[in-house]
Amino acid sequence: MGEQLTDEHEVVALERAALERWGKGDPGGFLEICAPDVVYFDPSLERRIDGLAALTRYYEGLWGTVSFERFELINPQVQVVGDAAILTFNYASYGAAGGPSRWNCTEVFRREADVWRIIQTHWSYTIAKRA
Amino acid sequence: MGEQLTDEHEVVALERAALERWGKGDPGGFLEICAPDVVYFDPSLERRIDGLAALTRYYEGLWGTVSFERFELINPQVQVVGDAAILTFNYASYGAAGGPSRWNCTEVFRREADVWRIIQTHWSYTIAKRA
Repeated sequence: MGEQLTDEHEVVALERAALERWGKGDPGGFLEICAPDVVYFDPSLERRIDGLAALTRYYEGLWGTVSFERFELINPQVQVVGDAAILTFNYASYGAAGGPSRWNCTEVFRREADVWRIIQTHWSYTIAKRA
Repeated sequence: MGEQLTDEHEVVALERAALERWGKGDPGGFLEICAPDVVYFDPSLERRIDGLAALTRYYEGLWGTVSFERFELINPQVQVVGDAAILTFNYASYGAAGGPSRWNCTEVFRREADVWRIIQTHWSYTIAKRA
C-alpha cells in the first residue's frame, strides 16, 4: 500500500504510447486502453464525460485536429493501491508553432486480468484562468 | 472491481465536511484527511505538489483567504478498486459576491486501517483558458 514508482511502471509506457498517437491526431491509442466505465475531464467541457461510449463520441470529434512534434512527461509518479495505479505528471507538448503547451494530468488505471485500463482521466492547463 | 456508487459512499461525506471548513477559510479539514504521500494539482501551480509537508505549507498561505456561503457537488461518482476510491465531480461554490465558481475535481482516497485518506487531489476550472 502506498508503493511509489517513477517512470518505470507499465502504465507510464502505456500513457506514452497513447500520447505518441494523440500527437499524430489519433485518439485511438487512448480509447483502446480505456475501461467501459472511464470518466473524463478536460478544460473545454461543461461536465465530466461518463463512459467509454460518450468519450468515444467526443474523441471522434477531435480526430485529426491535434498535432504536436514531441512531448514531455515531467516528473511522472505512480501511486499503486492494489489493482489501482494513479499516474500523475506535468506535461509539455511542442508543435510546429513552437510551444510549449503545458498541462496537468491525472490518469487512474485499474488492472483487469493483467491488463491496465484507464478508468479516470483529468487534463487541465498548468496555470489557467476562467474562460 | 468497478463497483460504482453515487453520493452514498463515505468519501463523499469526507469531502463535503472538508469543503464546509474550506468555505470558512480553513484548509485544515483537508490536511487532516490527507496521506503523507498526497499529490496535488490546482490551476495556480507551476508544478504538482508532492507530499503532505509541502501541501501544508501551500495551504497555510491560503488560510483565511477562501470564503463561500454554499457549494454543490454535481453528480459525484465513486469508483472503488479494492482499497482505492476515486471520487470525481463537477463543483460550484457561491460566495457573497454571487458566483458560481465552477470547478472539476478528482480526489483519490486510499483506505488505511478503515480510514480513508486522500492520496491525490486535482482541481481545475470548468471551462478554462491558458493564463
